[in-house]
Amino acid sequence: MIKHALNVTREANFAEWYQTVITEADMAEESGVRGCMVIRPWGYGIWERIQRLLDDRIKATGHENCYFPLFIPLSYFEKEAEHVDGFAKEMAVVTHHRLIHKDGKMIPDPEAKLEEPLVVRPTSETVIGAAFSRWVQSWRDLPVLINQWANVVRWEMRTRMFLRTAEFLWQEGHTAHASVEEAREETMKMLEVYRSFAEECVAMPVIAGEKPENERFPGAVSTYSIEAMMQDGKALQAGTSHFLGTTFSSAQDIKFQNSEGQLELAQTTSWGMSTRMIGGLIMTHGDDDGLRVPPRVAPWQVVIVPMLRDNDEDAALIDYCKGIQQELARQYAFGEPVRALLDLRAAKAVTKRWGWIKKGAPLVVEVGGRDMAGGNVSVTVRTDLYKEDGKLNSAIVARDAFLAEAIGRLEAVQKALYDEAKARTDANIVRDIADFAGLESYFEGAGKFPGWVEVEWARPSGAELDKVVERLKALKLTFRNVPNDAAPATGTCIFTGAPAVERILVARAY
Amino acid sequence: MIKHALNVTREANFAEWYQTVITEADMAEESGVRGCMVIRPWGYGIWERIQRLLDDRIKATGHENCYFPLFIPLSYFEKEAEHVDGFAKEMAVVTHHRLIHKDGKMIPDPEAKLEEPLVVRPTSETVIGAAFSRWVQSWRDLPVLINQWANVVRWEMRTRMFLRTAEFLWQEGHTAHASVEEAREETMKMLEVYRSFAEECVAMPVIAGEKPENERFPGAVSTYSIEAMMQDGKALQAGTSHFLGTTFSSAQDIKFQNSEGQLELAQTTSWGMSTRMIGGLIMTHGDDDGLRVPPRVAPWQVVIVPMLRDNDEDAALIDYCKGIQQELARQYAFGEPVRALLDLRAAKAVTKRWGWIKKGAPLVVEVGGRDMAGGNVSVTVRTDLYKEDGKLNSAIVARDAFLAEAIGRLEAVQKALYDEAKARTDANIVRDIADFAGLESYFEGAGKFPGWVEVEWARPSGAELDKVVERLKALKLTFRNVPNDAAPATGTCIFTGAPAVERILVARAY
Repeated sequence: MIKHALNVTREANFAEWYQTVITEADMAEESGVRGCMVIRPWGYGIWERIQRLLDDRIKATGHENCYFPLFIPLSYFEKEAEHVDGFAKEMAVVTHHRLIHKDGKMIPDPEAKLEEPLVVRPTSETVIGAAFSRWVQSWRDLPVLINQWANVVRWEMRTRMFLRTAEFLWQEGHTAHASVEEAREETMKMLEVYRSFAEECVAMPVIAGEKPENERFPGAVSTYSIEAMMQDGKALQAGTSHFLGTTFSSAQDIKFQNSEGQLELAQTTSWGMSTRMIGGLIMTHGDDDGLRVPPRVAPWQVVIVPMLRDNDEDAALIDYCKGIQQELARQYAFGEPVRALLDLRAAKAVTKRWGWIKKGAPLVVEVGGRDMAGGNVSVTVRTDLYKEDGKLNSAIVARDAFLAEAIGRLEAVQKALYDEAKARTDANIVRDIADFAGLESYFEGAGKFPGWVEVEWARPSGAELDKVVERLKALKLTFRNVPNDAAPATGTCIFTGAPAVERILVARAY
Repeated sequence: MIKHALNVTREANFAEWYQTVITEADMAEESGVRGCMVIRPWGYGIWERIQRLLDDRIKATGHENCYFPLFIPLSYFEKEAEHVDGFAKEMAVVTHHRLIHKDGKMIPDPEAKLEEPLVVRPTSETVIGAAFSRWVQSWRDLPVLINQWANVVRWEMRTRMFLRTAEFLWQEGHTAHASVEEAREETMKMLEVYRSFAEECVAMPVIAGEKPENERFPGAVSTYSIEAMMQDGKALQAGTSHFLGTTFSSAQDIKFQNSEGQLELAQTTSWGMSTRMIGGLIMTHGDDDGLRVPPRVAPWQVVIVPMLRDNDEDAALIDYCKGIQQELARQYAFGEPVRALLDLRAAKAVTKRWGWIKKGAPLVVEVGGRDMAGGNVSVTVRTDLYKEDGKLNSAIVARDAFLAEAIGRLEAVQKALYDEAKARTDANIVRDIADFAGLESYFEGAGKFPGWVEVEWARPSGAELDKVVERLKALKLTFRNVPNDAAPATGTCIFTGAPAVERILVARAY
């Protein structure tokens, strides 16, 4: 019987386990400001890795970074009714620009009320659209391909760290094109960037596909997403890409003269990925000992812990460890120098070891005086933590052998995490349910952590779709997406009985 | 007579020249949101370079990045009177969290008024202090060394792009220590990080020193700055480092048990550098042809422009240029791979050339069919733009020779920019003024772009200092700092006649 590092298991209480991982891995904490969290170094370090790797891919596909204002005048939002209605209920509004003392307190100065209130951006289509309308005059100015890394605010009433917070960090790409074809191609290209990034860097298998009408971004013609299966069987939308057609170009007047000299509205897109991805990483890879971070996004891939004894031998031990650290930093894993930390904090080695296990560092290397004397190190691999007898699986390895194998081990951890999640996802999508009763009985009988169901449907619209959505809601289910690589439909819609046109994923979701 | 690329010179109208550089180099533009700018790709690309290089130095000195909330509850500010009074006049205040439709417009929902208004952070000492009070219990938890990259808002009435905007981007470091000595050492260490970063990366000579009492950050015990001389002789404060003593630890209750078991208040510091640095870069290095970007912070160090003719030879020309780009990217300048862009946009080569000159790319390489046939390229170095006869100084160079010399040329441009600014700064600090009348007559007689004056003073305080500050204000002058490496004082204070204790810089300033 293994004694795990956390005091709650996934099986016992998944929501509590999730929060425990965040706390025990020092990733984030409540800030005291409603709905906002403090992202601590280990959590932020993972975000920095995500930023670096995703930014490289965004730039490699021809986009440049810009920065647009945090505040958006109300009038910008009023121009596009569907968009503003989609966000109006959760907008933080700035109304004053000065504080004064009154009765021993500070209050907003009634004399410093803004003529027009400003909204703290929940997303930037409107303010970026206004810039595009200045930038785009001729077909020669197109395409415009930009991205920004920013904070956004959506005033959520029920928040959960990383998954749903009032303020969150993200990137939002915005592009303008001369034709529908080109804008649709961009939308799909960025969806593919998200898919490959999630799978290759975060080791998170995802299903890319189109959202149904009721799940579209406010103002979008088509919305696509990548959906990942968490260990409790719920779906997490981990990135979205929108074809916006002329919704924002007509609202913000983004017009260009085409090569025939006629004025046309530009076709725009937008796409985003956020700190939510870190919540997805936790629920994909975490286990009952804490987090497991895929090496490509780990702030530290190897942590070296010298077993210091506050005696004369410590200096030699530290030197020995520094040598290992330097040798590692000269090697490349996944095309970048290995990130190896030498942990010299004033704490017991065993406390450090378990701290790094809970944080999910891929490789933990401990070195005591005896190891050093034998030219060895003791290696713990985060994805292979216990022996069959339940004891910690730390192996004594010759220093040089460890250095020769380190890159291979990191690659193996990256692959093991992906393979495990991929096998779980594949094993938990049911594709043979042919009617609504079958759907109901699957979710009634599937136990605590049901998987996903992929069913055939006729793509109902409007009021007919609303009714279907209500029926799903009663089962706590939602539509996720129509997978790009789903098999063709051959039967009838399980919701309407009409001839089916495609297959769609149904799941509980975050 | 040289015909320069800009339609206004520094000499004719420095303020208009500054704005023209920003526009012509596509760095930033008005956003339509009061006091906020849009930072365009070339401006943001420089910021990304600054971020990368400064972040490396912040991490190398032991700091880790975190992220704290954008919003700060009013009650956090009320705890420290001096601090809140310093910022109260320019705070953006969020009062509502929802919009509703009313009479065809959107308004903040009166039913969704926040119980406690939230301030959009102007700086984060209060909210980070609250986190420190949770993190610090024992001397073993110290020091805490963290940094965040964030946007902040100060509601400025008179704004100027990069120099003073309502919203700006910065990094703010915050640390907590067990002793005054250690906190003061940290304050000076980060001041030195700023000095070396400004000089080595931005090629901007600066003077590091302590601010006088009247220029301290609200709540600080001591404030230090780096000050740079712009080409109009004005001073720009380009980074600050504050020793905060126990101001925020007493307000936010950051206490620790020392090794003797007694409770003590922690000693804290904070330090910041912002997008203002880009304004400083422009006014340090720009010339009448636009911006000149030091290679270390240039988004593209080499721009390759093939002279395309829309004919069959274009493909071979593009291949030839791609070969050069790839060879460059394999080389290292300043420890990083060379950043070389191949400019394939649909525009005339001459338009592109002058576009990149105005943007200040260090090296512009043009290649026509004849150059290719001869195995050559045409190189323009941004810091050596004209021949003696006033013609553009583009030189035909053998391709291989260019590739062999490219790193050396980039290093030479970096050095030339620094040397030029350093010589100008050194030549324009007057150190032999012995009384206030001398100060007055210097600034009256110094012409359009006066330099700085370093004078001896007795470090007056309180009301006595206020009077001195008023006298300087009448001359549009301010105290900059007491240079760390100034000569010792030997005479009398030019303001009070008392025995002088140190030397202080006086200047007009941004």
